[in-house]
Amino acid sequence: MDRIDFQTDPSRYRHWKLRFDGPVAHLIMDVDPQGGLFEGYELKLNSYDLGVDIELHDAVQRLRFEHPEVRAVVLRSGKENVFCAGANIRMLAGASHVHKVNFCKFTNETRMAIEDATENSDQSYLAAISGSCAGGGYEIAMTAAHLMLIDDRRSTVALPETPLLAVLPGTGGLTRLTDKRRVRRDRADVFCCREEGVRGKRAIEWRLVDEIVPPSAWEATVLKRAAEFATRSDRPAEARGIALLPLDRIFSDDAVNYSHVRVDLDRANHRAIITIRGPQTLPTDLAGIFEAGAAFWPLAVARELDDALLHLRLNEPELGLLVFRSEGDPAAVLAADALLETHASDWLVREVRLFFKRVLKRVDLTARSLIALIEPGGCFAGSLLEIAFAADRAIMFTGTRNGDNRPPATLALSPLNFSTYKMSNGLTRLETRFLGEPDSIGHARARIGEALDSDAAEALGLITVAYDEIDWDQEVRMLLEERASFSADALTAMEANLRFAGPETMETRIFGRLTAWQNWVFQRPNAVGDAGALKRYGSGVQPTYDQTRV
Amino acid sequence: MDRIDFQTDPSRYRHWKLRFDGPVAHLIMDVDPQGGLFEGYELKLNSYDLGVDIELHDAVQRLRFEHPEVRAVVLRSGKENVFCAGANIRMLAGASHVHKVNFCKFTNETRMAIEDATENSDQSYLAAISGSCAGGGYEIAMTAAHLMLIDDRRSTVALPETPLLAVLPGTGGLTRLTDKRRVRRDRADVFCCREEGVRGKRAIEWRLVDEIVPPSAWEATVLKRAAEFATRSDRPAEARGIALLPLDRIFSDDAVNYSHVRVDLDRANHRAIITIRGPQTLPTDLAGIFEAGAAFWPLAVARELDDALLHLRLNEPELGLLVFRSEGDPAAVLAADALLETHASDWLVREVRLFFKRVLKRVDLTARSLIALIEPGGCFAGSLLEIAFAADRAIMFTGTRNGDNRPPATLALSPLNFSTYKMSNGLTRLETRFLGEPDSIGHARARIGEALDSDAAEALGLITVAYDEIDWDQEVRMLLEERASFSADALTAMEANLRFAGPETMETRIFGRLTAWQNWVFQRPNAVGDAGALKRYGSGVQPTYDQTRV
Repeated sequence: MDRIDFQTDPSRYRHWKLRFDGPVAHLIMDVDPQGGLFEGYELKLNSYDLGVDIELHDAVQRLRFEHPEVRAVVLRSGKENVFCAGANIRMLAGASHVHKVNFCKFTNETRMAIEDATENSDQSYLAAISGSCAGGGYEIAMTAAHLMLIDDRRSTVALPETPLLAVLPGTGGLTRLTDKRRVRRDRADVFCCREEGVRGKRAIEWRLVDEIVPPSAWEATVLKRAAEFATRSDRPAEARGIALLPLDRIFSDDAVNYSHVRVDLDRANHRAIITIRGPQTLPTDLAGIFEAGAAFWPLAVARELDDALLHLRLNEPELGLLVFRSEGDPAAVLAADALLETHASDWLVREVRLFFKRVLKRVDLTARSLIALIEPGGCFAGSLLEIAFAADRAIMFTGTRNGDNRPPATLALSPLNFSTYKMSNGLTRLETRFLGEPDSIGHARARIGEALDSDAAEALGLITVAYDEIDWDQEVRMLLEERASFSADALTAMEANLRFAGPETMETRIFGRLTAWQNWVFQRPNAVGDAGALKRYGSGVQPTYDQTRV
Repeated sequence: MDRIDFQTDPSRYRHWKLRFDGPVAHLIMDVDPQGGLFEGYELKLNSYDLGVDIELHDAVQRLRFEHPEVRAVVLRSGKENVFCAGANIRMLAGASHVHKVNFCKFTNETRMAIEDATENSDQSYLAAISGSCAGGGYEIAMTAAHLMLIDDRRSTVALPETPLLAVLPGTGGLTRLTDKRRVRRDRADVFCCREEGVRGKRAIEWRLVDEIVPPSAWEATVLKRAAEFATRSDRPAEARGIALLPLDRIFSDDAVNYSHVRVDLDRANHRAIITIRGPQTLPTDLAGIFEAGAAFWPLAVARELDDALLHLRLNEPELGLLVFRSEGDPAAVLAADALLETHASDWLVREVRLFFKRVLKRVDLTARSLIALIEPGGCFAGSLLEIAFAADRAIMFTGTRNGDNRPPATLALSPLNFSTYKMSNGLTRLETRFLGEPDSIGHARARIGEALDSDAAEALGLITVAYDEIDWDQEVRMLLEERASFSADALTAMEANLRFAGPETMETRIFGRLTAWQNWVFQRPNAVGDAGALKRYGSGVQPTYDQTRV
């Protein structure tokens, strides 16, 4: 199978159009039926596959970085009678379990990124729904801060997955219905069992949309509402965006090389080693950050890491272990963090911080065992140290290796570890780590900026275990071999539970509860069997269901 | 297959012993290896199956109702070298998916009931762990308020499911580790990957147990600690318990008849109709409640409903629809509620309220579509009305039927609807229902005690929809037929999402996140395939794992 590539840019879009009108952008879904990522299906009726979503993901990022002047984004359709028919059924019917699961996860992450733009970048999304808006289509629409539905007696919103396809509205649909839109649960039940959806006044009464608009006033009202959202935004009108230039990447058989990230693929041992390099150069002020643009280290390294994670998820499913290493000067990472702190109120620096946050969430949600190795010559400090906190285990070297003239292994905290990078449970990784001993957060905070050796790191509870030169090689080898010998599924499920202690949010509910149930359904014959609903869809033959309840 | 019966009593226990010592009871697990519920496995090493758990469930109920003087319960083992080895592997390997899932759900509910006794009945459980305590064994122990581990260099606690069996510690284990005991997540990861478990000082340091005790001081310290917990309890020392007498039940081919509950089994239509009768007689004061004992209507009807739900779950898996009806005088139900309110501070009335709460939670967690029909002559009022709020939809009759001299359909609220019956998400059903419109709770509260007809009920948002005589039969028939035509799995998963809006608690995380992932794992070949870990366990042949990560 061809490698799935997550990099694109507007000049290559086949499915989305961007139109700019001062502070308002229109993000128009106009899917090319012939543009599917795989053979065997047509993307009719603005239905989507992973390729469509990769473009959406790209557009959402670019709107934030390249268009500081855009304060409101109108999500709409380029088709006449349909807003979006949801995920393509024939694609789902033909896809492997692993593809279905990772397709849903990526689309979920992109939906969250849209909400993050509204909530944290003051770039608000509105959904202008004209035509049928069903399943995944309504799930996209629900990410918007304001849902408008044309009241033309034809246009409806619907979540027909259960009656029609024997699967869930699993891209956040059920959770957003109850938790974001707070639809009364019995109405949600009725709604999710109706193939034909809901329109007009009932859509308002049930809180499925925020506004219905007669056709005669549709365009004017959409523009007016977008302008209102734009007015309330703090985004700078006169700023110049920075271009998200193509990543420097070289793929070879057993590695992917980026500027600051190297991925070594060790297929024999079911693992990938991800080495992250610290900054070589850094600007000294805000003007320098703008001048560096996409080359500014925190942004560059985050984009590369993001691409590497997505590549591993979709293209290397048998590498169940991700081993994170770092190389560089911890002081340089702390200097980068200081820039991110000093200029936190600038729109671009805000975007860089938010993007770093989202990439770290992608790490948390990656269904691979994550091991961080904190070694001599490494630079797990500040923002980069979050990766060690995201890992299932962080193993630290005590001192240096005999004959190695690199500095001894240390780690260092920065203020960003204590507030900026919230996980999807709404807590920082340190807060999650120290749920049972909140005092430990204060003890760690008191040591910000210090180069902490393994004794100090262990005493502060920041690492899992430390080994000196005598034991390191053998202990690490045994750990990695043992982990690779366990069932991939049991590890995925165990990690999905252990990583997200503490409070649940809409996000964690989507990835924990809803996704877990959807993954279960995605294995059930009623959905995916030869007589199941996904396979029989469109054939004219009714699916056959086993009516046993579990 | 023989019917699985959830009714038992101490005279019939094969696996548990109860020893009473004033305010302290000892609940001793001493599993009879030959006493398995099915053929094909021996319950070695205090491993358990559903039959063992049915007795535990019974003991936990009786300790509350029959033994008001018991203030602390010591969970311990009757075997020499093992506390409990967890769920029996050969039983799991041979069980159907539906049995595994319902076995885990019931054991989870029983674990919650233990915690409910500690938290709300002031009957505290302590776990006295001597010998190996692994998997489900440690999951039982974690329900205790205080975990004691003998420090004899042999006794350990362990969650070896992932490395050993390719499944999760799914009876709350992962969630209690991170959320109740607040074990640091990387330590939890190490712990869950160690077959051999943890003992001694490390078990304390990692918060896996609360206390380690040298063998020489073991018995004395266990008794001392139990006495300390007993001292802090508010349970009455001199009260007389009430006997949980055997239920009046008659099973026939297509029905189960209890005193206040009738279950009609309509297998052709995949549904069961559960008719609940209101009180015929009620005591007038507290002495009368004690005199009635297990016959006191709220307790009697709750016990019958509980038994009916469990019967349907395990013995009638193809009845995907539960239709709840009621017959009786709403005023009598409100009078029962008034007794429960007036005497709320009495220990027995507290137990009745808590039991009713737990049964309603069992309704919420039952993986069947729940439809309440509110009809003329019915008595959905107060505590019983919670069943309509627990249902996925509540359908109400408008007025009376022509020629029917029963009273018109009404429903009525009591104060208990606003505080007493918390769902596992920590909210009342009305709070959950009205998450998006909290004012509606106040509007409903203002109408407590009124007989509300369908117009009033609809205006208050208390029902899903109302039909008059002209439409009722057809609409109800169509609804039930349509529901039965959908995929059983999609409905189970959809309902598990829609029923629990709002906050998550340890309980909802166990049933939502952990259970959903476990159910997914319970379908994966790495666990249940012919070369999977459950099947290969004990064979001497290593399981073969597909290393693909999803």
